[in-house]
Amino acid sequence: MSKAVFYHAGCPVCVEAEQQVAKSIDPQKYNVEIVHLGEASGRLAEAETAGVKSVPALVLDGAVFHINHGADLSALKS
Amino acid sequence: MSKAVFYHAGCPVCVEAEQQVAKSIDPQKYNVEIVHLGEASGRLAEAETAGVKSVPALVLDGAVFHINHGADLSALKS
Repeated sequence: MSKAVFYHAGCPVCVEAEQQVAKSIDPQKYNVEIVHLGEASGRLAEAETAGVKSVPALVLDGAVFHINHGADLSALKS
Repeated sequence: MSKAVFYHAGCPVCVEAEQQVAKSIDPQKYNVEIVHLGEASGRLAEAETAGVKSVPALVLDGAVFHINHGADLSALKS
């Protein structure tokens, strides 16, 4: 089983991508985890290390795919 | 069955996204079609009408998701 992590921040662009892209992933192949970086700010460092520059982003087995553009990761740091 | 169309143009960013993102889509839910706009330039108008601005892009039931950035659609027109 491969790992897919979908990072978002609750923005409209993120929610649309979550509903469509994250839900389209094959559950037979991937364990999909959805992380709301606005609520789980403790995981910002993990996202940054993975190479996430903006949200929404999908990390498939370590490869980062930025999907459209909701917010820069830097805007989520307080 | 829903429809997913993955538009790309053979660029390295496109190929990586094709191999990872297009292949992660649940075949139980989506008919996935992969369109190489460099070879199928007759489909540029269709992609543009769908709202595709750059490749690689994934269109899920009519909603466009631009994934990373390989090339602007305008660069593919000759």
